[in-house]
Amino acid sequence: MATSLITGPSANSPDRNEAGEDVIRVGVIGYGYWGPNIVRNFHGQDHSNVVAVCDKSPKSLHRVKAAYPAIHCTSDANELLISPDIDLIAVVTPVWTHYELAKAALENGKHVFVEKPFTTNAAQAEELIELAERKHLKIMVDHTFLFTGAVKRIRSFIDDGTLGKLYYYDSTRVNLGLFQHDVNVIWDLAPHDLSIMDYVIAEKPEAVVATGQGHLNGIANIAFLTLYYPNNVIGHINVNWLSPVKVRTTLIGGEKKMLVWNDIEVDEKIKLYDKGVQMGNPEGLYQMLVSYRTGDMWAPKVEQVEALKVEAAYFVDCILNNKTPFNDGQAGLRIVRMLEAADESLKQKGKIIQL
Amino acid sequence: MATSLITGPSANSPDRNEAGEDVIRVGVIGYGYWGPNIVRNFHGQDHSNVVAVCDKSPKSLHRVKAAYPAIHCTSDANELLISPDIDLIAVVTPVWTHYELAKAALENGKHVFVEKPFTTNAAQAEELIELAERKHLKIMVDHTFLFTGAVKRIRSFIDDGTLGKLYYYDSTRVNLGLFQHDVNVIWDLAPHDLSIMDYVIAEKPEAVVATGQGHLNGIANIAFLTLYYPNNVIGHINVNWLSPVKVRTTLIGGEKKMLVWNDIEVDEKIKLYDKGVQMGNPEGLYQMLVSYRTGDMWAPKVEQVEALKVEAAYFVDCILNNKTPFNDGQAGLRIVRMLEAADESLKQKGKIIQL
Amino acid sequence: MATSLITGPSANSPDRNEAGEDVIRVGVIGYGYWGPNIVRNFHGQDHSNVVAVCDKSPKSLHRVKAAYPAIHCTSDANELLISPDIDLIAVVTPVWTHYELAKAALENGKHVFVEKPFTTNAAQAEELIELAERKHLKIMVDHTFLFTGAVKRIRSFIDDGTLGKLYYYDSTRVNLGLFQHDVNVIWDLAPHDLSIMDYVIAEKPEAVVATGQGHLNGIANIAFLTLYYPNNVIGHINVNWLSPVKVRTTLIGGEKKMLVWNDIEVDEKIKLYDKGVQMGNPEGLYQMLVSYRTGDMWAPKVEQVEALKVEAAYFVDCILNNKTPFNDGQAGLRIVRMLEAADESLKQKGKIIQL
Amino acid sequence: MATSLITGPSANSPDRNEAGEDVIRVGVIGYGYWGPNIVRNFHGQDHSNVVAVCDKSPKSLHRVKAAYPAIHCTSDANELLISPDIDLIAVVTPVWTHYELAKAALENGKHVFVEKPFTTNAAQAEELIELAERKHLKIMVDHTFLFTGAVKRIRSFIDDGTLGKLYYYDSTRVNLGLFQHDVNVIWDLAPHDLSIMDYVIAEKPEAVVATGQGHLNGIANIAFLTLYYPNNVIGHINVNWLSPVKVRTTLIGGEKKMLVWNDIEVDEKIKLYDKGVQMGNPEGLYQMLVSYRTGDMWAPKVEQVEALKVEAAYFVDCILNNKTPFNDGQAGLRIVRMLEAADESLKQKGKIIQL
Repeated sequence: MATSLITGPSANSPDRNEAGEDVIRVGVIGYGYWGPNIVRNFHGQDHSNVVAVCDKSPKSLHRVKAAYPAIHCTSDANELLISPDIDLIAVVTPVWTHYELAKAALENGKHVFVEKPFTTNAAQAEELIELAERKHLKIMVDHTFLFTGAVKRIRSFIDDGTLGKLYYYDSTRVNLGLFQHDVNVIWDLAPHDLSIMDYVIAEKPEAVVATGQGHLNGIANIAFLTLYYPNNVIGHINVNWLSPVKVRTTLIGGEKKMLVWNDIEVDEKIKLYDKGVQMGNPEGLYQMLVSYRTGDMWAPKVEQVEALKVEAAYFVDCILNNKTPFNDGQAGLRIVRMLEAADESLKQKGKIIQL
Repeated sequence: MATSLITGPSANSPDRNEAGEDVIRVGVIGYGYWGPNIVRNFHGQDHSNVVAVCDKSPKSLHRVKAAYPAIHCTSDANELLISPDIDLIAVVTPVWTHYELAKAALENGKHVFVEKPFTTNAAQAEELIELAERKHLKIMVDHTFLFTGAVKRIRSFIDDGTLGKLYYYDSTRVNLGLFQHDVNVIWDLAPHDLSIMDYVIAEKPEAVVATGQGHLNGIANIAFLTLYYPNNVIGHINVNWLSPVKVRTTLIGGEKKMLVWNDIEVDEKIKLYDKGVQMGNPEGLYQMLVSYRTGDMWAPKVEQVEALKVEAAYFVDCILNNKTPFNDGQAGLRIVRMLEAADESLKQKGKIIQL
Repeated sequence: MATSLITGPSANSPDRNEAGEDVIRVGVIGYGYWGPNIVRNFHGQDHSNVVAVCDKSPKSLHRVKAAYPAIHCTSDANELLISPDIDLIAVVTPVWTHYELAKAALENGKHVFVEKPFTTNAAQAEELIELAERKHLKIMVDHTFLFTGAVKRIRSFIDDGTLGKLYYYDSTRVNLGLFQHDVNVIWDLAPHDLSIMDYVIAEKPEAVVATGQGHLNGIANIAFLTLYYPNNVIGHINVNWLSPVKVRTTLIGGEKKMLVWNDIEVDEKIKLYDKGVQMGNPEGLYQMLVSYRTGDMWAPKVEQVEALKVEAAYFVDCILNNKTPFNDGQAGLRIVRMLEAADESLKQKGKIIQL
Repeated sequence: MATSLITGPSANSPDRNEAGEDVIRVGVIGYGYWGPNIVRNFHGQDHSNVVAVCDKSPKSLHRVKAAYPAIHCTSDANELLISPDIDLIAVVTPVWTHYELAKAALENGKHVFVEKPFTTNAAQAEELIELAERKHLKIMVDHTFLFTGAVKRIRSFIDDGTLGKLYYYDSTRVNLGLFQHDVNVIWDLAPHDLSIMDYVIAEKPEAVVATGQGHLNGIANIAFLTLYYPNNVIGHINVNWLSPVKVRTTLIGGEKKMLVWNDIEVDEKIKLYDKGVQMGNPEGLYQMLVSYRTGDMWAPKVEQVEALKVEAAYFVDCILNNKTPFNDGQAGLRIVRMLEAADESLKQKGKIIQL
């Protein structure tokens, strides 16, 4: 039976802030690489507070204690999952544990914030979505990039017609770094691009082709995805854990304008090129270049906020006001379906897999 | 019947230079974008001279005349093909004309220098190779990049074991520019990468997967090629005619070192990274990065020569001394086979095609 | 009379760590832009602990409390200056307050860590040095850059003869940002370069020329310093608060090699160029370029540590083991003398001022 | 007595083009590094033709002959200076010869196009200007940069108020390369910047401060110039022959906007930053940053023309239509006066020299 995690003065009504408004009480499971960011952005906010953190590693819990003496620490996830003092469970653990933890949280009446990718397969995601709906609970999948100034700006340039008819979306996301377990580079890096494409491109992809190779432990560490969209839109993602240099560059081509998003740039992340191509009349025998239009380049100021902070506040707001976040379980499911299809294509060396 | 193209004093023994050595007399067919470079690098050299240029465009011929008053100009390719005063025909015309022109040149006893890609299909290439062998003539396919300091250096880094066991070769070759005829972006841009990979990678690719899309006239203007090699080596080529920025970057990963070749850089085209990855022990629950080694970066001085000048001199030397160039018809044929396979895969949306 | 700042369990013997070794108790005055870094790097270290922080702003003290509940907070500097529980005072306040605070700290028997620039004039610096010597106390001036991997590497390249005879040191340190009080851009930004030059160049400068201009409030926001060294070595510093882009680039030329230090680069901060110039024989009438040698470029791996952490530990070690830090009061004084001379030259529009 | 340089058919009326319009006949003295560009841009133009080239080096004359068989070649400058077939003498020789050659040309009734810097001192420049006026002849000093798209754009951004009140102009022009004779790096590289500043800044500089050093042969190979303008505008030029990297970057700060001109960039030479600074209210004790405005960056398309071609045509037009070029002898004289003052200041180690 659940007993209160919270003792002492800070346990007094954690569900109200000083203004008497509701405050969501968050339990965070997993305090490895990303967990500290989750805690920092949910904790001490206007409408949310982290009340407990769970991690298997004593060292991690020690770090929590040092930084947040008031937060309850435990190595037993169940404490959080069944606690009546927790409204929202953040699942910041390896992918293969997402389903089980999220399911337990939902069954215990808690909203769920899950790291990307949502689950290891579509069936799990569908079950969690169904469970949450039945229990009237919210799921948010942590597609952090959707809350960056850059991605918002890209979406607006597509939505408002600045780019014109979309031609292609081509992302390179490579660096030196490697997971050690059962997740390949596609499941690690591509969810960023897939969720961004899901967000900024109006249509949904129809099929995927993936190729790649594993060089160390049989798990693919380099992979290339092609996504076929309606209306000849094509997407491509180049992910690589064995690159000597870090690259985070996306080219987006449209009929009217073209865009380069270099996320490594500090100040000028997005460059919009007033360039376009027109079919010209051939002249002469050989290799005629099309007449193309080339004008100014413009680097709009991009909002500089911590995306995760915006995302956390947005989820809290969705819970408090019963709104469905756009990066909900359905969004997470769409990405998982693409990942599954990519895995299947990768296994079959580029066989096209319909979505 | 053939009459001498050459009149006046410059026609005196064009087959001997001032030192009394042999000089190859070159006829150039095609004076569009690349032709002027061919003429400049074969003309007035120690062992070669351009004696005639053919182009259908009077404007092009006018440019030849202005720059080289002594070179015979004509709009009739046959004049060159049958002239007894020409030893070598350079075919610098659109791909679909290569076979016919090269064949006529060979049949008339002339060596042939052909632009890349060699022919529009493998059967044509095989026929030309067979014809040249029968006639004891030389074919060189203009894979200019193989004569750059950068490519030579990359090959030496692979050959001498600097990179260690090869993992991947990943090239991005994109810019704004478009052919108008029947050649897609793969046939236009990928031959550069394919010929370089053919030159620097010891093994030959076993299969190819290609995806892509055409946005303007049905011809693919963006494409992605994956090449599967033995021993888990993987190659990837990203070619795009509709990019707002020009990129010419190749990442090459090996077990011991990794390399970035940025051909747009003026001074530091090749950067060699003393970086490597080792499989480590997982610690903690989530997202453990492998331990990786990261050391100095080194940008070796790269020989700065005009590659085409070296290539032209090399072909002339091959002819004079009866040597087979490494970029001969066979090399051209290998590339054409890859292009054919890529086209087939592209048509079938990523279906793997064995080579 | 001083009473203990420390109450409760954490006040138990702050002068011993768990291994029973000495621990320096630090009081930090000033918690604005840089203060948090000072606290973080002195606090909870093997041999140092921050016991109290003073700032005039309640907001700043609130931030201290939130991050470090155990640290005593006050708006009264005297509490720290006279506390028997403090061994070392870190002065992280505006320049014009350094002298008074450091003097009081020394008089109360405390070692002093002072922000750069040390004092507002040489007389103050000399008095503090004399006072510290008399009291057998240590002064360290926070020239943080001297503890970066990059500066250490540059010094070693000069010391071990890699660069050969030194020719010039030319730094550009510009960005958008402005102090509002009585300090001009020279006193704000140039101490970084002056202290680095003081550290890496064997000889001391003989004279300084400074020019500049103020555009907003009469205080120079752009300035250019030339330093004349013995043996024709010349130094130059370009500082600017009104630059649209941030630049942190230093060119260092030597007889044998040349170096570019770009501190904004993440991975390749230092590039060593195997380039040199030799006087050649003129040939022809006009504008003959000297024959110059140009070879490889090499970006050595630079140690990635937090410089301030190393510096703090080094000062604590100097105190515990009675060693004189190389960035002591004398080093601080040398920089202040250069700044004074630069100010004088600036006022006289470039008049050379001997040092 | 002068005899015609021109023989054979091309000597027929070189003073009329096919449309019967006037054609200026140009004689070029000096065919070293820059001479070929001069010949190429004056020769075969609508209203100008090069009829003779003089150089002391037989090798140079050989190059002329190879490229332009119709142009008369000689090693005797007098042939050109007195020839009745020449209307305009281009003086493309070392600085110390400019005065004598230009004077002889003017005395022989020829217009003069002179390389920068105009002369070795102001007295020579004044005499040439006076002589040209008396003889009703034109002088143009080859300040090529004034005819680039980038400089024209910068001028327009200043003229039309885009930048607002001008604050500073700060140029870095460094690379590896060295003259061997009697000209220091200021006379070699700074004329570019001085002429551009003369062109784009409305006011004229009042005084100059120069510092620098020579490391090889006593001639300064590194130098720093400060120019004081009315209204607190300040200019700075950093020139260096011993830099391992080539830099061509100018920062221009204004009240409303700021600009970076990077002439090494191929496509985005000019970046305009919507950044500005406002004096704010200090808050707290220490190191308050001013509130500053930071908005979009914009890289306007810059006209891509060969500046020298535009300049040559402009001079020819000035001669034919009796207009005074803006880069006339007076402009050349202003630059020479700044160079003389800079030399004087350099010699006196930064002593301010009034202009």
